[in-house]
Amino acid sequence: MSEAHAARRSQLRDRCAAAGSTAVLVTRPANIRYLAGAAPAGAALLLAPGGPGGPVGDLLLCPRPPAGDLAGGLLTGELRARTLSAAAADAAVEAAGLAAAAGAEQLVVEEHHLSVTRHRAVGAAAPGLRLTDLGRAVEQQRLVKDEQEIAALRIAAEIADQALGELLESILVGRTERHLALELERRLIDHGADGPAFPTSVGTGPHSGLPGHRPSDRRVEEGDFLSVCLGAGYGGYHCELGRTFVIGTTPARWQIELYEVVFAAQRAGREALAPDVPYRDVDRAARQILDAAGYGGGLPVPTGHGVGLEIREDPELSPGAMGKLDACVPVTVEPGVHLPGRGGVRIDDTLVVRPEADGGPELLTITTKELLAL
Amino acid sequence: MSEAHAARRSQLRDRCAAAGSTAVLVTRPANIRYLAGAAPAGAALLLAPGGPGGPVGDLLLCPRPPAGDLAGGLLTGELRARTLSAAAADAAVEAAGLAAAAGAEQLVVEEHHLSVTRHRAVGAAAPGLRLTDLGRAVEQQRLVKDEQEIAALRIAAEIADQALGELLESILVGRTERHLALELERRLIDHGADGPAFPTSVGTGPHSGLPGHRPSDRRVEEGDFLSVCLGAGYGGYHCELGRTFVIGTTPARWQIELYEVVFAAQRAGREALAPDVPYRDVDRAARQILDAAGYGGGLPVPTGHGVGLEIREDPELSPGAMGKLDACVPVTVEPGVHLPGRGGVRIDDTLVVRPEADGGPELLTITTKELLAL
Repeated sequence: MSEAHAARRSQLRDRCAAAGSTAVLVTRPANIRYLAGAAPAGAALLLAPGGPGGPVGDLLLCPRPPAGDLAGGLLTGELRARTLSAAAADAAVEAAGLAAAAGAEQLVVEEHHLSVTRHRAVGAAAPGLRLTDLGRAVEQQRLVKDEQEIAALRIAAEIADQALGELLESILVGRTERHLALELERRLIDHGADGPAFPTSVGTGPHSGLPGHRPSDRRVEEGDFLSVCLGAGYGGYHCELGRTFVIGTTPARWQIELYEVVFAAQRAGREALAPDVPYRDVDRAARQILDAAGYGGGLPVPTGHGVGLEIREDPELSPGAMGKLDACVPVTVEPGVHLPGRGGVRIDDTLVVRPEADGGPELLTITTKELLAL
Repeated sequence: MSEAHAARRSQLRDRCAAAGSTAVLVTRPANIRYLAGAAPAGAALLLAPGGPGGPVGDLLLCPRPPAGDLAGGLLTGELRARTLSAAAADAAVEAAGLAAAAGAEQLVVEEHHLSVTRHRAVGAAAPGLRLTDLGRAVEQQRLVKDEQEIAALRIAAEIADQALGELLESILVGRTERHLALELERRLIDHGADGPAFPTSVGTGPHSGLPGHRPSDRRVEEGDFLSVCLGAGYGGYHCELGRTFVIGTTPARWQIELYEVVFAAQRAGREALAPDVPYRDVDRAARQILDAAGYGGGLPVPTGHGVGLEIREDPELSPGAMGKLDACVPVTVEPGVHLPGRGGVRIDDTLVVRPEADGGPELLTITTKELLAL
């Protein structure tokens, strides 16, 4: 992957016209990982003036001696890892000093990530240096994934599918939400995940269908809806998978009807995924089915969001979102309905946007979406 | 607890002289939780001019409709919870507008938490409002814990002790670091923890003694050092417990010697804990024993740190730390030595600083520190 990382840094440098006397300072951990392949705690990435071949080059400054792949100091021919000097407390501040010493006149920083206090310290470390804003340039660059990134997401999705599939074969009645969540997380690790992509959510009965429900000590009962949302992290990439089941032999009529509405909304959202489709149109495709069935007007929860090095990243598929989908953008589609006191349904898939000529959206999470009675 | 929260807000208001035309905006989640009792994602806490009895009062602004205790809107007579208006995307920005509308001339913000971009948006939302810096005033206020906070920490420590004690009764040889870590986390939940206070670290053989080691697929072998660091979260409060064991019937001579050095260093650190003792003296007490035994000059890892609503908070017990301990400050004492390729020892306790008249430091994590051969 180190060539891919070098290419990403080069693209960012071009975008900032940072070949001359401009240096770029990246501090947001997911952005550092995207550009350098690793983001030790408290690290800062400096793209120094003069480019990767210059006297300073591309430098990953780490508060602690780097371990593992970073320990050698030289990550690739173009990126070095180095520990902070003893006097420095903040990698960003030391980077600013190095940039100034290397002849930079301008330092482009992530103003949406640097706190006001840190920004001030960065400025004070190099008084001659003009600070300007990188904005969300790296987040923009991260939107469209390459095939290696998508391969990692595909494995993450497969792990989540396996963990959920195994759980469904066990006896569920009488077990608590917390224990089911823990068991799912254990199975994610068993199947090779780095860890859960986010805290696993298990909701039973009245808790079912609530987005981000924190597992409680409520036990699974006959007749419950059971909704589960889990995800695996693999190779730094994160996916999401959510399903709702019925406990017992025969779902009630209201359960079948509610499930059908959410299923139709989720399918409409999935089918709307294509290059050049506005984000808000995907949201609307799902939302209008819920609205038509009388379940609108609820929470302004987005219908979906991008996934990648972070479990929630750009784009947001919501009514107010600006922008259009591209090919090779992985997103979730996860509409749901929750009826207070009764419970509800959420269905959540991770998919990759693909042109119709390539077969349309690629579904990564393949667990069945039939209403299973367990 | 709601009276305690109101008293904390009142203390902060006094500190900011915020009775007149000054409003205070708190955005850092742990600080919001300290002052309001809860910190929904993306929330901001506004202490409006005119005090809690004023027209706006103390307001918790939440991006999503508040759930649970917050759902009623009225948290106590003095604190209200409210959802953002539909047009607002950022609770801090809406709070600034409300502060200006309520007649504030000055808004005190957390410059160490607000990003440059958010700070700019807050300023733009209320052009007449002068923004000043709250600094780490709330973090300072959080240093000394009240007895309810210490009671939560005591339960958290008890849970961690129980989880570790049970693990030690099981067979360890042949199991992977990952599975031992997962089992510990399951036991934490079983005993009533909200969750692990941080990712559980289990290191075997050459991985033992590494601070923050991420569990791998290495299996426990006869003759290994096994070091474990875990913590429970309970009622929002976090503790830490670390021990090192030997696997097999007879520890090797180097293992016994290394253990004795680290044990002596950790004891010296614990015994140094008292009101008015400089932070750096606690660090030195432990560090000079490691140095004298020839294990100095290693990583500049602090000897310990405060715990509370965050697992790592002020103070830091390190060579460069400024300040002195107070009674009722809970801290960790966790020196260690790691010998590359061979492994090492870490011993980590959570204690509360108490005056000698009250019996000296209160040890919360009571698992034995004898060198156990398992």
